[in-house]
Amino acid sequence: MSDEHFMQQALNEARKAQEKGEVPIGAVVVMNGQIIGRGHNQVEMLTDCTAHAEMIALTAAFNYMGAKYLPEATLYVTLEPCVMCAGALYWSKIGRIVYAAPDDKNGYRRVTGEKSPFHPKTKIETGLRGEESLSMVKAFFAARRK
Amino acid sequence: MSDEHFMQQALNEARKAQEKGEVPIGAVVVMNGQIIGRGHNQVEMLTDCTAHAEMIALTAAFNYMGAKYLPEATLYVTLEPCVMCAGALYWSKIGRIVYAAPDDKNGYRRVTGEKSPFHPKTKIETGLRGEESLSMVKAFFAARRK
Repeated sequence: MSDEHFMQQALNEARKAQEKGEVPIGAVVVMNGQIIGRGHNQVEMLTDCTAHAEMIALTAAFNYMGAKYLPEATLYVTLEPCVMCAGALYWSKIGRIVYAAPDDKNGYRRVTGEKSPFHPKTKIETGLRGEESLSMVKAFFAARRK
Repeated sequence: MSDEHFMQQALNEARKAQEKGEVPIGAVVVMNGQIIGRGHNQVEMLTDCTAHAEMIALTAAFNYMGAKYLPEATLYVTLEPCVMCAGALYWSKIGRIVYAAPDDKNGYRRVTGEKSPFHPKTKIETGLRGEESLSMVKAFFAARRK
Protein backbone atom coordinates (compact mmCIF):
# COMPACT_ATOMS: atom_id res chain seq x y z
CA MET A 1 0.00 0.00 0.00
CA SER A 2 1.32 3.44 -0.90
CA ASP A 3 1.64 6.72 0.98
CA GLU A 4 -0.96 8.02 -1.48
CA HIS A 5 -3.42 5.33 -0.36
CA PHE A 6 -3.00 6.07 3.34
CA MET A 7 -3.20 9.84 2.90
CA GLN A 8 -6.48 9.21 1.07
CA GLN A 9 -7.65 7.38 4.21
CA ALA A 10 -6.66 10.40 6.32
CA LEU A 11 -8.55 12.67 3.90
CA ASN A 12 -11.57 10.37 4.27
CA GLU A 13 -11.34 10.90 8.04
CA ALA A 14 -11.17 14.67 7.48
CA ARG A 15 -14.33 14.40 5.38
CA LYS A 16 -16.11 12.68 8.31
CA ALA A 17 -15.18 15.63 10.54
CA GLN A 18 -16.46 18.06 7.90
CA GLU A 19 -19.80 16.27 7.70
CA LYS A 20 -20.21 16.72 11.48
CA GLY A 21 -19.41 20.43 11.37
CA GLU A 22 -15.92 19.95 12.79
CA VAL A 23 -12.72 21.48 11.41
CA PRO A 24 -11.90 18.95 8.64
CA ILE A 25 -8.72 17.25 9.82
CA GLY A 26 -8.12 13.51 9.73
CA ALA A 27 -5.34 11.05 10.61
CA VAL A 28 -4.46 7.37 10.37
CA VAL A 29 -1.66 5.39 12.02
CA VAL A 30 -0.20 2.63 9.87
CA MET A 31 2.09 -0.29 10.69
CA ASN A 32 3.19 -3.05 8.32
CA GLY A 33 0.75 -1.81 5.69
CA GLN A 34 -2.22 -1.96 8.05
CA ILE A 35 -4.21 0.86 9.65
CA ILE A 36 -3.97 0.44 13.44
CA GLY A 37 -5.64 3.73 14.43
CA ARG A 38 -7.96 6.29 12.85
CA GLY A 39 -9.18 9.65 14.04
CA HIS A 40 -10.87 12.83 12.99
CA ASN A 41 -11.28 16.10 14.78
CA GLN A 42 -14.07 15.86 17.42
CA VAL A 43 -13.51 19.08 19.38
CA GLU A 44 -17.10 20.29 19.04
CA MET A 45 -18.81 16.94 19.57
CA LEU A 46 -16.82 16.17 22.73
CA THR A 47 -16.51 19.86 23.80
CA ASP A 48 -12.86 18.99 24.37
CA CYS A 49 -10.21 21.08 22.68
CA THR A 50 -7.73 18.20 23.01
CA ALA A 51 -9.83 15.88 20.79
CA HIS A 52 -7.65 16.35 17.71
CA ALA A 53 -7.47 13.78 14.91
CA GLU A 54 -3.89 12.82 15.80
CA MET A 55 -4.61 12.32 19.53
CA ILE A 56 -7.58 10.08 18.77
CA ALA A 57 -5.67 8.07 16.13
CA LEU A 58 -2.67 7.65 18.45
CA THR A 59 -4.76 6.51 21.42
CA ALA A 60 -6.60 4.06 19.12
CA ALA A 61 -3.24 2.70 17.94
CA PHE A 62 -1.87 2.34 21.50
CA ASN A 63 -5.03 0.46 22.47
CA TYR A 64 -4.92 -1.79 19.42
CA MET A 65 -1.25 -2.64 19.87
CA GLY A 66 -1.23 -2.75 23.68
CA ALA A 67 1.97 -0.72 23.38
CA LYS A 68 2.84 2.81 24.42
CA TYR A 69 5.55 3.34 21.79
CA LEU A 70 5.14 3.08 18.00
CA PRO A 71 8.64 3.25 16.49
CA GLU A 72 7.61 1.09 13.50
CA ALA A 73 4.52 3.12 12.64
CA THR A 74 3.73 6.05 10.35
CA LEU A 75 1.18 8.77 11.09
CA TYR A 76 -0.58 10.25 8.06
CA VAL A 77 -2.37 13.50 8.88
CA THR A 78 -4.03 16.05 6.63
CA LEU A 79 -2.60 19.16 8.37
CA GLU A 80 0.63 20.03 10.16
CA PRO A 81 0.28 18.90 13.81
CA CYS A 82 -0.15 21.55 16.52
CA VAL A 83 2.20 21.82 19.52
CA MET A 84 0.05 19.46 21.61
CA CYS A 85 -0.05 16.77 18.92
CA ALA A 86 3.66 17.23 18.20
CA GLY A 87 4.31 16.62 21.91
CA ALA A 88 2.14 13.48 21.85
CA LEU A 89 4.03 12.26 18.75
CA TYR A 90 7.31 12.86 20.59
CA TRP A 91 6.21 10.61 23.45
CA SER A 92 4.98 7.93 21.02
CA LYS A 93 8.46 7.64 19.42
CA ILE A 94 6.61 7.20 16.13
CA GLY A 95 8.88 6.27 13.22
CA ARG A 96 7.53 8.61 10.56
CA ILE A 97 5.08 11.48 10.17
CA VAL A 98 3.59 12.47 6.80
CA TYR A 99 1.45 15.62 6.87
CA ALA A 100 -0.36 16.89 3.81
CA ALA A 101 -0.40 20.66 4.28
CA PRO A 102 1.43 23.21 6.44
CA ASP A 103 -0.51 25.13 9.11
CA ASP A 104 1.16 28.52 9.41
CA LYS A 105 -1.21 29.64 12.16
CA ASN A 106 -1.29 26.72 14.58
CA GLY A 107 1.32 24.25 13.34
CA TYR A 108 4.07 23.20 15.76
CA ARG A 109 6.75 25.08 13.84
CA ARG A 110 5.16 28.37 14.92
CA VAL A 111 6.40 27.67 18.47
CA THR A 112 9.34 25.32 18.02
CA GLY A 113 10.88 27.07 15.01
CA GLU A 114 13.80 25.10 13.60
CA LYS A 115 14.05 22.96 16.74
CA SER A 116 12.36 19.59 16.12
CA PRO A 117 9.96 18.65 18.92
CA PHE A 118 10.00 14.98 17.80
CA HIS A 119 12.09 11.98 18.79
CA PRO A 120 15.51 12.17 17.06
CA LYS A 121 14.69 9.05 14.97
CA THR A 122 11.30 10.33 13.71
CA LYS A 123 11.26 11.14 9.99
CA ILE A 124 9.06 14.01 8.77
CA GLU A 125 7.61 14.45 5.27
CA THR A 126 5.11 16.89 3.89
CA GLY A 127 3.35 17.94 0.69
CA LEU A 128 1.40 14.82 -0.30
CA ARG A 129 -2.20 15.86 -1.21
CA GLY A 130 -1.51 19.21 0.47
CA GLU A 131 -3.68 21.31 -1.85
CA GLU A 132 -6.68 19.04 -1.39
CA SER A 133 -6.37 19.20 2.39
CA LEU A 134 -5.94 22.98 2.48
CA SER A 135 -8.88 23.60 0.17
CA MET A 136 -11.11 21.57 2.51
CA VAL A 137 -9.95 23.59 5.54
CA LYS A 138 -10.29 26.92 3.70
CA ALA A 139 -13.82 26.06 2.49
CA PHE A 140 -14.78 25.17 6.07
CA PHE A 141 -13.67 28.51 7.52
CA ALA A 142 -15.07 30.49 4.57
CA ALA A 143 -18.50 28.89 5.13
CA ARG A 144 -18.33 29.59 8.88
CA ARG A 145 -17.59 33.29 8.32
CA LYS A 146 -20.71 33.72 6.19
CA MET B 1 -9.35 28.05 49.50
CA SER B 2 -5.66 28.75 49.02
CA ASP B 3 -3.13 27.83 46.33
CA GLU B 4 -1.47 25.75 49.05
CA HIS B 5 -4.67 23.73 49.52
CA PHE B 6 -5.11 22.99 45.82
CA MET B 7 -1.46 22.09 45.31
CA GLN B 8 -1.90 19.64 48.17
CA GLN B 9 -4.77 18.11 46.18
CA ALA B 10 -2.48 17.82 43.14
CA LEU B 11 0.18 16.18 45.34
CA ASN B 12 -2.49 13.75 46.58
CA GLU B 13 -3.18 12.85 42.93
CA ALA B 14 0.56 12.32 42.39
CA ARG B 15 0.56 9.98 45.36
CA LYS B 16 -2.21 7.91 43.73
CA ALA B 17 -0.04 7.54 40.62
CA GLN B 18 2.92 6.49 42.78
CA GLU B 19 0.86 3.82 44.50
CA LYS B 20 0.03 2.32 41.09
CA GLY B 21 3.68 2.29 39.95
CA GLU B 22 3.19 5.31 37.68
CA VAL B 23 5.51 8.31 37.51
CA PRO B 24 4.13 10.38 40.43
CA ILE B 25 2.56 13.45 38.81
CA GLY B 26 -0.85 14.86 39.66
CA ALA B 27 -3.05 17.77 38.64
CA VAL B 28 -6.31 19.48 39.54
CA VAL B 29 -8.32 22.12 37.66
CA VAL B 30 -10.04 24.67 39.90
CA MET B 31 -12.74 27.23 39.18
CA ASN B 32 -14.42 29.52 41.72
CA GLY B 33 -12.75 27.64 44.57
CA GLN B 34 -14.04 24.26 43.40
CA ILE B 35 -12.17 21.34 41.85
CA ILE B 36 -13.72 20.67 38.42
CA GLY B 37 -11.18 18.11 37.18
CA ARG B 38 -8.57 15.78 38.69
CA GLY B 39 -5.95 13.59 37.10
CA HIS B 40 -2.86 11.57 37.75
CA ASN B 41 -0.42 9.98 35.40
CA GLN B 42 -1.86 6.72 33.94
CA VAL B 43 0.62 6.03 31.13
CA GLU B 44 1.39 2.46 32.26
CA MET B 45 -2.15 1.46 33.22
CA LEU B 46 -3.59 2.67 29.90
CA THR B 47 -0.43 1.86 27.85
CA ASP B 48 -0.96 5.32 26.40
CA CYS B 49 1.89 7.80 26.55
CA THR B 50 -0.59 10.69 26.23
CA ALA B 51 -2.34 9.81 29.52
CA HIS B 52 -0.63 12.56 31.51
CA ALA B 53 -2.14 14.04 34.67
CA GLU B 54 -2.84 17.38 32.98
CA MET B 55 -4.59 15.84 29.94
CA ILE B 56 -6.84 13.74 32.17
CA ALA B 57 -7.65 16.67 34.50
CA LEU B 58 -8.39 18.98 31.53
CA THR B 59 -10.68 16.48 29.80
CA ALA B 60 -12.49 15.90 33.11
CA ALA B 61 -12.95 19.68 33.49
CA PHE B 62 -14.23 20.09 29.91
CA ASN B 63 -16.72 17.29 30.52
CA TYR B 64 -17.84 18.70 33.87
CA MET B 65 -18.29 22.22 32.50
CA GLY B 66 -19.61 21.25 29.06
CA ALA B 67 -17.19 23.89 27.79
CA LYS B 68 -14.10 23.65 25.64
CA TYR B 69 -12.39 26.76 27.05
CA LEU B 70 -11.49 27.43 30.69
CA PRO B 71 -10.39 31.08 30.90
CA GLU B 72 -11.59 31.39 34.52
CA ALA B 73 -9.85 28.25 35.74
CA THR B 74 -6.46 27.47 37.31
CA LEU B 75 -4.49 24.27 36.74
CA TYR B 76 -2.35 23.11 39.66
CA VAL B 77 0.19 20.48 38.64
CA THR B 78 3.09 18.95 40.54
CA LEU B 79 5.64 19.14 37.68
CA GLU B 80 6.31 21.50 34.78
CA PRO B 81 4.05 20.47 31.88
CA CYS B 82 5.62 18.75 28.85
CA VAL B 83 5.23 20.12 25.30
CA MET B 84 2.06 18.08 24.70
CA CYS B 85 0.38 19.28 27.88
CA ALA B 86 1.53 22.86 27.24
CA GLY B 87 -0.14 22.63 23.82
CA ALA B 88 -3.34 21.30 25.39
CA LEU B 89 -3.26 24.15 27.93
CA TYR B 90 -2.84 26.62 25.06
CA TRP B 91 -6.01 25.32 23.39
CA SER B 92 -7.92 25.42 26.70
CA LYS B 93 -7.22 29.18 27.14
CA ILE B 94 -6.83 28.39 30.84
CA GLY B 95 -6.48 31.50 33.00
CA ARG B 96 -3.61 30.40 35.24
CA ILE B 97 -1.13 27.58 35.61
CA VAL B 98 0.69 26.84 38.88
CA TYR B 99 3.33 24.13 38.68
CA ALA B 100 5.25 22.95 41.72
CA ALA B 101 8.65 21.95 40.31
CA PRO B 102 10.59 22.53 37.08
CA ASP B 103 11.30 19.58 34.76
CA ASP B 104 14.60 20.32 33.07
CA LYS B 105 14.47 17.11 31.01
CA ASN B 106 10.94 17.05 29.60
CA GLY B 107 9.36 20.38 30.56
CA TYR B 108 7.98 22.54 27.76
CA ARG B 109 10.73 25.16 28.18
CA ARG B 110 13.25 22.63 26.82
CA VAL B 111 11.63 23.02 23.38
CA THR B 112 9.96 26.43 23.48
CA GLY B 113 12.76 28.28 25.27
CA GLU B 114 11.76 31.84 26.13
CA LYS B 115 8.76 31.71 23.75
CA SER B 116 5.57 31.05 25.73
CA PRO B 117 3.47 28.25 24.20
CA PHE B 118 0.40 29.42 26.17
CA HIS B 119 -2.46 31.78 25.41
CA PRO B 120 -1.29 35.39 25.86
CA LYS B 121 -3.65 35.87 28.83
CA THR B 122 -2.49 32.74 30.70
CA LYS B 123 -0.55 33.49 33.90
CA ILE B 124 2.22 31.11 34.97
CA GLU B 125 3.55 30.59 38.48
CA THR B 126 5.96 28.06 39.91
CA GLY B 127 7.74 27.01 43.10
CA LEU B 128 4.86 26.14 45.45
CA ARG B 129 5.64 22.78 47.14
CA GLY B 130 8.35 22.23 44.52
CA GLU B 131 10.76 20.33 46.77
CA GLU B 132 8.09 17.89 47.90
CA SER B 133 7.08 17.16 44.32
CA LEU B 134 10.66 16.70 43.10
CA SER B 135 11.58 14.41 45.98
CA MET B 136 8.63 12.16 45.09
CA VAL B 137 9.71 11.99 41.42
CA LYS B 138 13.37 11.42 42.32
CA ALA B 139 12.49 8.63 44.77
CA PHE B 140 10.39 6.96 42.07
CA PHE B 141 13.20 6.88 39.52
CA ALA B 142 15.82 5.91 42.12
CA ALA B 143 13.68 2.90 43.11
CA ARG B 144 13.18 1.91 39.47
CA ARG B 145 16.92 1.93 38.75
CA LYS B 146 17.61 -0.56 41.58
